Amino acid sequence: MRNNTFEEIAAALAQGKSILLFPHIHADGDALGSCSALCRALRKAGKDCWVLIEDRIPENLQFLDRDYCTTDQDILGAPDLSVCVDCSDMDRIHNRGRRFLSAKVTVCIDHHRTTDSFCDLNYIDSSAAATGELIYGLLTACGAEIDREIAEAIFAAIVTDTGRFQYSNTSRHTHEIAAALYDAGIDAGHICTEIYESMRMERLMIRNMALNTMSTVAGGRAVIAYVTQEMLRETGAFLDETDGIVEELRSIKGVEAAVFLKEAEDGSIKVSMRSKEALNVAEIAQTMGGGGHIRAAGCTLTCSLSDAYDQIRNRLTDGLERL
Amino acid sequence: MRNNTFEEIAAALAQGKSILLFPHIHADGDALGSCSALCRALRKAGKDCWVLIEDRIPENLQFLDRDYCTTDQDILGAPDLSVCVDCSDMDRIHNRGRRFLSAKVTVCIDHHRTTDSFCDLNYIDSSAAATGELIYGLLTACGAEIDREIAEAIFAAIVTDTGRFQYSNTSRHTHEIAAALYDAGIDAGHICTEIYESMRMERLMIRNMALNTMSTVAGGRAVIAYVTQEMLRETGAFLDETDGIVEELRSIKGVEAAVFLKEAEDGSIKVSMRSKEALNVAEIAQTMGGGGHIRAAGCTLTCSLSDAYDQIRNRLTDGLERL
Repeated sequence: MRNNTFEEIAAALAQGKSILLFPHIHADGDALGSCSALCRALRKAGKDCWVLIEDRIPENLQFLDRDYCTTDQDILGAPDLSVCVDCSDMDRIHNRGRRFLSAKVTVCIDHHRTTDSFCDLNYIDSSAAATGELIYGLLTACGAEIDREIAEAIFAAIVTDTGRFQYSNTSRHTHEIAAALYDAGIDAGHICTEIYESMRMERLMIRNMALNTMSTVAGGRAVIAYVTQEMLRETGAFLDETDGIVEELRSIKGVEAAVFLKEAEDGSIKVSMRSKEALNVAEIAQTMGGGGHIRAAGCTLTCSLSDAYDQIRNRLTDGLERL
Repeated sequence: MRNNTFEEIAAALAQGKSILLFPHIHADGDALGSCSALCRALRKAGKDCWVLIEDRIPENLQFLDRDYCTTDQDILGAPDLSVCVDCSDMDRIHNRGRRFLSAKVTVCIDHHRTTDSFCDLNYIDSSAAATGELIYGLLTACGAEIDREIAEAIFAAIVTDTGRFQYSNTSRHTHEIAAALYDAGIDAGHICTEIYESMRMERLMIRNMALNTMSTVAGGRAVIAYVTQEMLRETGAFLDETDGIVEELRSIKGVEAAVFLKEAEDGSIKVSMRSKEALNVAEIAQTMGGGGHIRAAGCTLTCSLSDAYDQIRNRLTDGLERL
């Protein structure tokens, strides 16, 4: 797949009047931060622009939505452009696919590894630590002013997808962008307080409860924990407030792989997998109909929690033995 | 107090043959990373150099000690130079004070706010996010090669003292240094795995147990939790494995101040205080014989845990009311 240049994409954006941005479902800091930054820049350039979502924005990311996001699926009619941001997979545009494809021109800006493109214009760079890096590149390439709000949204995108500059995707370039964002007057401490220090008490409680379900497999090289709908009811926590638990499980000494099983409202089991330095969890996820990155992947299973647990345990054990 | 220049300090280091480095007691990532980086650079320059410590290095920081640290209080005899690193307070040199002062020349390199100096040469810059930034400045000022090991030690110093580039002390300059360290080939992902993803299972257990002791004061604007010697025995955790819990308490939504009380082996109560955006906890700590930064301070009380709890609750309530 050939990438377009930032300049080609900027030219397409310049020609459009109405533009819809599509983050992936269960939008995270990178998807929302990237969309917010781009939406603000496009509105400042006089465009009718909205971020079309279909689900709840997590509490700690709501500061990124300054009247950019809408769940109104009819907004803007058939737009001139649709841009999927941090999402190069129609499945992750989910129920908004028809709206996405209704645009005259479709654009994809993403850093996830993908094999095929479904858009007219594409900028996909899996070496970028975050889609926020690409939005920064796009905006600077087309000479847009990086004001403080845009800079803070891009910072939020980068800081969340790099685990605070911690994951191995972080590069010299990531820090160079972060340094440049300070020139726009970002209050990085405040952004991080919003993202990382606005934990509801319920979140703390569900985490403690979930960590208590932890068991080790493959001789301690992997750990599995879970959360059920009943545990969520008991604590009053939202399912998305269990985000981060799988990274915490991975952080245990000697643990190469961590898996967190989430019982969804419809009874399906959402599986989040992380590995530290060796296991390719994307491969394991793919064998179960999912996907993702080498060190962070997932899938959804339609079976009981205990069946899901057994399946995962077996695949982890196999995978770790083959290392 | 007048600061010397990096060049003046470099000249003093160049003239010495035997050099002892002194991190503060309970050395953290900044103290140990800064000492390791400086020790390696000085040894490469042909010096007899050691990092003199008097207590245990936390598990997750032991990778920084590549035969640099010693608890042998007689090593090197009376050195040509003593350098206190990340420590501008004789109290925090603790039982090594006599050794420190036995040197012909004493040097202080630190980023903690201090009012007086006790060394012949000083470089104290409280605007630096970490002493690691100052070590980077010193080494580049004197033309020392920043090799990969030095760069990784400096990265460890910076990443720990900024909470992964999160705290408000982080600046454009911090990210510029981080970007430059990538040129030396650092594996930042691996460093962060060592620091943040090498958590002993016992640490996870003591944390869960300590978080369960949490109570709110001042109408939920502050939280207090504690750990006792009995809890440590029950889980098999070390006291230093409760580091980080106070930051976690602070991260709760609506909480301005968090306090964590640690019952030490000698029965004294070590108090760690953190605030989010408004309360000056250094002031509160000072009224109880302690000190620290505006958002991170501490003191030690010689009373029962419940007396300490009451004292702290009252002072927090007073302090928060006065905001």
